[in-house]
Amino acid sequence: MNRERLIEETRGQMPARRWEHTLGVVGSAAALAAKYGADAEKAELAALLHDYCKYWPIDEQRREYAEAGLDPDLLRYDPQLIHGPLAAEIVRRRYGIDDPEILDAIRYHTSGREKMSLLDKIVCLADYIEPGRDFPGVHNIREIAEHSLERALVAGFDSTIQFLLAKGKKVYPLTLAARNALLDEIGRPELG
Amino acid sequence: MNRERLIEETRGQMPARRWEHTLGVVGSAAALAAKYGADAEKAELAALLHDYCKYWPIDEQRREYAEAGLDPDLLRYDPQLIHGPLAAEIVRRRYGIDDPEILDAIRYHTSGREKMSLLDKIVCLADYIEPGRDFPGVHNIREIAEHSLERALVAGFDSTIQFLLAKGKKVYPLTLAARNALLDEIGRPELG
Repeated sequence: MNRERLIEETRGQMPARRWEHTLGVVGSAAALAAKYGADAEKAELAALLHDYCKYWPIDEQRREYAEAGLDPDLLRYDPQLIHGPLAAEIVRRRYGIDDPEILDAIRYHTSGREKMSLLDKIVCLADYIEPGRDFPGVHNIREIAEHSLERALVAGFDSTIQFLLAKGKKVYPLTLAARNALLDEIGRPELG
Repeated sequence: MNRERLIEETRGQMPARRWEHTLGVVGSAAALAAKYGADAEKAELAALLHDYCKYWPIDEQRREYAEAGLDPDLLRYDPQLIHGPLAAEIVRRRYGIDDPEILDAIRYHTSGREKMSLLDKIVCLADYIEPGRDFPGVHNIREIAEHSLERALVAGFDSTIQFLLAKGKKVYPLTLAARNALLDEIGRPELG
């Protein structure tokens, strides 16, 4: 499939205002890829497709997720976690995208994972900081992203975890594992 | 060993001001046991012994922990986590305490664990709310403890996790698992 058609089909999966968000993530992912030495083409493609399934009805997401045999444990947590792993599966089937780096960056863009690749980090962070985002702390995360992918992602995950704590919602263990592993990468002192 | 001597030996493991804390936890654990229908004698014994190793030099704690063959993964997190599992091991050896409920309540009093027993909950919560405690939010946790062990513990773990996020420190995965499981017990809606 050519790029034009892939863009049109992806645009067709979501409402207009969310398409703006996708374009923002593509732009931020390209900028981060240039800054941190990742493959810009892969970053843009993963960013284009990251929310492919996000605006499908949640029941359809759950059904497709279950039918694809994806990890059922994830279903015990926030339903917002379904669309990443599901999109990786769907774009592989529909468009024959089989680059594991691209698929992983799509798969883990919401949750993170314990050992995030450079492309994982770029797509996940771009999703936090694209220009349309406006949540408490986003300016701070954008500033940190100027000098450290890992510290910016920790700040992003901190904001997600704080949001979930405040709402009395469960936190997906992989997100905590992602944050812990990033802190190890950063090498902050852990003495208590 | 009789109770008097056990008390004296435990008191001898820590500075005077921390002995006051232990007595506070014994009192709060007894009150919570009465309120929530647990065995008061077990709750008081676990509370008495919970910080048995906490004021040992940290290098000694690490060495004894490693020599006892306890889970090395825990050593990747805050060193404050060592003293609970270590105390369970030490009091078993020194005093022949072999009641698994008491040992588990000592072992998991700082971290929590995925399926906390009634005794685990009581000792862990007593450690948060004993009268000598004075951290932001402790009054709120004491109030919640008047009507729900589980909600009070979630509030306690929330304060611990928030503290660790703010300090840029790693969060022990078992603590998150404890909070997630308590939310399941409470049965709050999880829809995002």
